[in-house]
Amino acid sequence: MAPSSPDTDFTPILCTVDVVLLTLERQELHAVLMQRPHGPCAGAWALPGGYIHAQEDGTAWDAAARVLRHKVGIASPYLEQLATYSGAERDPRGWSVSIVYCALVPAEMLPASAPGLQRAPVHRLPPLAFDHADMVALAVSRVRSKSQYSSLPVYFCGERMTLPQLQAVYEAVLGEPVNKVSFRRKIDELGMLEPIEGVLESGAAHRPAQVYRLRPPYRRALSLVARGLNA
Amino acid sequence: MAPSSPDTDFTPILCTVDVVLLTLERQELHAVLMQRPHGPCAGAWALPGGYIHAQEDGTAWDAAARVLRHKVGIASPYLEQLATYSGAERDPRGWSVSIVYCALVPAEMLPASAPGLQRAPVHRLPPLAFDHADMVALAVSRVRSKSQYSSLPVYFCGERMTLPQLQAVYEAVLGEPVNKVSFRRKIDELGMLEPIEGVLESGAAHRPAQVYRLRPPYRRALSLVARGLNA
Repeated sequence: MAPSSPDTDFTPILCTVDVVLLTLERQELHAVLMQRPHGPCAGAWALPGGYIHAQEDGTAWDAAARVLRHKVGIASPYLEQLATYSGAERDPRGWSVSIVYCALVPAEMLPASAPGLQRAPVHRLPPLAFDHADMVALAVSRVRSKSQYSSLPVYFCGERMTLPQLQAVYEAVLGEPVNKVSFRRKIDELGMLEPIEGVLESGAAHRPAQVYRLRPPYRRALSLVARGLNA
Repeated sequence: MAPSSPDTDFTPILCTVDVVLLTLERQELHAVLMQRPHGPCAGAWALPGGYIHAQEDGTAWDAAARVLRHKVGIASPYLEQLATYSGAERDPRGWSVSIVYCALVPAEMLPASAPGLQRAPVHRLPPLAFDHADMVALAVSRVRSKSQYSSLPVYFCGERMTLPQLQAVYEAVLGEPVNKVSFRRKIDELGMLEPIEGVLESGAAHRPAQVYRLRPPYRRALSLVARGLNA
């Protein structure tokens, strides 16, 4: 605030949250979309979102978690702030702020597609309301760049996985092949997996692979490596 | 927005911007602070900030630029969104959102310290109002991590510099020594400097160093290297 005159211009501004809810399906990133039942943009596809409820939400994060709970029916273990979009022009109802969050979940956690609800591949989205297409693009780019350095993609996985399965998840997220030797070294460095004694999974054409489970702390917090997967 | 009932709960929320304005002075990161002339927290030090003016600001970025212009008297070439702080508890006036920006400027661009205005070393800040200390800490950590991979620290520099001067700036920002050979290779890779023909600067104990100038595009956009300075 200024050392000069009191700053009391206070025009009400619309405060909303939107959530880019991503999952991995058939080796491709998908975003969850909802059809808008009301104007503006009635009938258009949009991200799950809504007004901040000042009476009910402690913070914008709480509002985003409430939107996911009430509108999609899930609690996402990963729900992080992405960026804030704002301005006079982005919503015809008036000057608005949208605090955007990114959530990652395994596909099996999501409800099935239904009228008004779909998962669309992030590179073949239908036209989206407002600036929601920009939000998805930013989320995808952020998830890709974070995945180079962290355990982030495990949020797309279930409780158990083999190393070839996990590598396929990383490759789908990064959109490029990953060197197997370097991948295994990084996963080792991240220290996030533990083998389940005596449990092997037999792939079709391969010899049986050890099944791992995620160590519990990695469900709750990201782990980082010093250098990227392809470094 | 939901496919269910219309979402019309709309309690006015205070919408502000705050700017973590950083500079480098005596090889140390400093943040610009202003003393609050009014309550809440009258007399406390705080970041330059203020309400979004819906009638005047096109976006929150415009509001942050206006705050810097009117309250500090500068236009920062680098002004990027950092994160948004929000909640019922952070400001006694009510549920509030602060969209926080980070700006980097050369020290000579800033006005001199004056009553109600100071530059404080980021690791020895006075007590700050609201959650402003968290904002500074986040900005410093973001600037450090981006500086590993980009031309970001040049925003602290003037128009001309020698390589030893630029290396000292990087080292001050990163808070650790940088290997000279690897540093020069990265700077070369970034392609941001051009030598000024025939201009040398004689250091006290060293042989004269070539003076460089920043290529104009690097004043406007960040340049990135594939791997970090210390990779």
